[in-house]
Amino acid sequence: VARRLIECVPNFSEGRDAAVVAAILNAISSVAGAAVLAHESDPDHHRSVITIAGSPDAVAEAAFRGVAEAVRLIDLNRHSGVHPRIGAADVVPFVPVDGVGMAECVEIAHRFGERVWRELKVPVYFYEHAARTAARRRLENVRRGRFEALREAALHDAERQPDVGGPGLHPTAGAVAVGARKFLLAFNINLTTSDVSLAERIARRIRQSSGGLPHVKAMGVLLSSRNLAQVSMNLTDYEVTPLHVVYEAVRREAESLGVRIAGSEIIGLMPAHALAMAAAHFLQCENYSSEVLLEGRIASKMVDCGV
Amino acid sequence: VARRLIECVPNFSEGRDAAVVAAILNAISSVAGAAVLAHESDPDHHRSVITIAGSPDAVAEAAFRGVAEAVRLIDLNRHSGVHPRIGAADVVPFVPVDGVGMAECVEIAHRFGERVWRELKVPVYFYEHAARTAARRRLENVRRGRFEALREAALHDAERQPDVGGPGLHPTAGAVAVGARKFLLAFNINLTTSDVSLAERIARRIRQSSGGLPHVKAMGVLLSSRNLAQVSMNLTDYEVTPLHVVYEAVRREAESLGVRIAGSEIIGLMPAHALAMAAAHFLQCENYSSEVLLEGRIASKMVDCGV
Repeated sequence: VARRLIECVPNFSEGRDAAVVAAILNAISSVAGAAVLAHESDPDHHRSVITIAGSPDAVAEAAFRGVAEAVRLIDLNRHSGVHPRIGAADVVPFVPVDGVGMAECVEIAHRFGERVWRELKVPVYFYEHAARTAARRRLENVRRGRFEALREAALHDAERQPDVGGPGLHPTAGAVAVGARKFLLAFNINLTTSDVSLAERIARRIRQSSGGLPHVKAMGVLLSSRNLAQVSMNLTDYEVTPLHVVYEAVRREAESLGVRIAGSEIIGLMPAHALAMAAAHFLQCENYSSEVLLEGRIASKMVDCGV
Repeated sequence: VARRLIECVPNFSEGRDAAVVAAILNAISSVAGAAVLAHESDPDHHRSVITIAGSPDAVAEAAFRGVAEAVRLIDLNRHSGVHPRIGAADVVPFVPVDGVGMAECVEIAHRFGERVWRELKVPVYFYEHAARTAARRRLENVRRGRFEALREAALHDAERQPDVGGPGLHPTAGAVAVGARKFLLAFNINLTTSDVSLAERIARRIRQSSGGLPHVKAMGVLLSSRNLAQVSMNLTDYEVTPLHVVYEAVRREAESLGVRIAGSEIIGLMPAHALAMAAAHFLQCENYSSEVLLEGRIASKMVDCGV
């Protein structure tokens, strides 16, 4: 039996009260076959992001327990933060990792959303690959107006009705945006300059929103601790636009502006295949595929044991 | 509980009789927690190589069952092949993969060797990291004279006594060389020429045996199917001399001879970290470590389940 792995990265609208975050983490950690890979709380955003991985059923169960705890403990009426949000459990994306396709993650998201409404009475919007209408593919559209405006719109505006549940939102927990999306790589490239306008120009040239590379989001920022300008990027489909394509594009644009790449950094975790694809490119490897990765081969040959 | 993985790559002196190879594979496959990743039989060498991976105890048990079956079925007195060998089960190297160090693989090798003698009455020589004397670190020294000469020497020559068991060898199964070694990468680089003498010159310049890169074995060969000269390499410690160092060295030497790299190929499996190290080099990544690899993080966080 081959290994089947997904990831889920729920975002919760609590980034200040450590006891609430701990309760959510405890609920998530109580499921065998799912593991918390990372969690991060931001007091300014008043938001916590938890990364769960494991077998599909276990991850969905763990995420559900986390959402239930958030619904119980978080009151959006008393929440403010710089980050847009519509729910106590704000977004719940399911991400294929290994042996599971996007279609299955969409099904997991849909079943998850039905359960959230059925058991918690919190309405659900589906986004990205799980969206049921084109307009809801983009999370920004789903979250437009945030909790405060959406609770009115969800009562009166036909176009803003939840996909599951309603009418209206949950009085304290709002709604949950449940999605399915690809693995997101966070990758930053530092330039040999402190002129942030150069990083901004490069970001504009390479990002999809201004006609650049598909599935690349980019902005220029100043790394004040090192006085270096940085092109900060998200790659939302690294198989379509891999790391090395982004690196080479930034290098070319930087050279055209008379600066060079000082270095790069990986934020968070990366699938081995994302880095191995880049290695294969630079090594001119003719026969690379993810099949050559030892750990993946081992995992795929092992008896499935809930992992 | 973190994941603990080793590999074992036993070589058996049977590459022609499919029934014997199947019996050995069946014995190896009967152990839960160990998996056969690959196997290859070569009729010219009259030899089969089987790659097993899994938890240390399971892999050692699987390898033992394979050796026992080989001892039962293979008679070296009726065996000839171009490859040097001293035993029905000729070499049994244990290789650290994840969460297990070389010192532990040496212990595994030693316990394995004691058991082979105790239960099968086949004497054992320890080599590479498991060697008990400097002279036996190199497998070539252990196998000198092959089965035919060693069975005499093991009776009369004090320097050729087995590390465990003896005096003399097993009458039909000979002896087993049991070792512990690092993961071996097989990596070939093709040149934009059919002149194999150029590949041979590059191989001489980069390999350790002629003063080149540590832990690199290299030879020049002609890829007759494509009429390309190839530098064919084994990297016996990819953390000391990584893929990108080898690639850059071959590129430099090739350019100095007026040719270029046409492409490269990976033979067999590679640990994700080996390729990711190369990616990090070419991407100028400042913060790469194997900790960023998603699959490794997942595995290390999962409850141990015999894998």
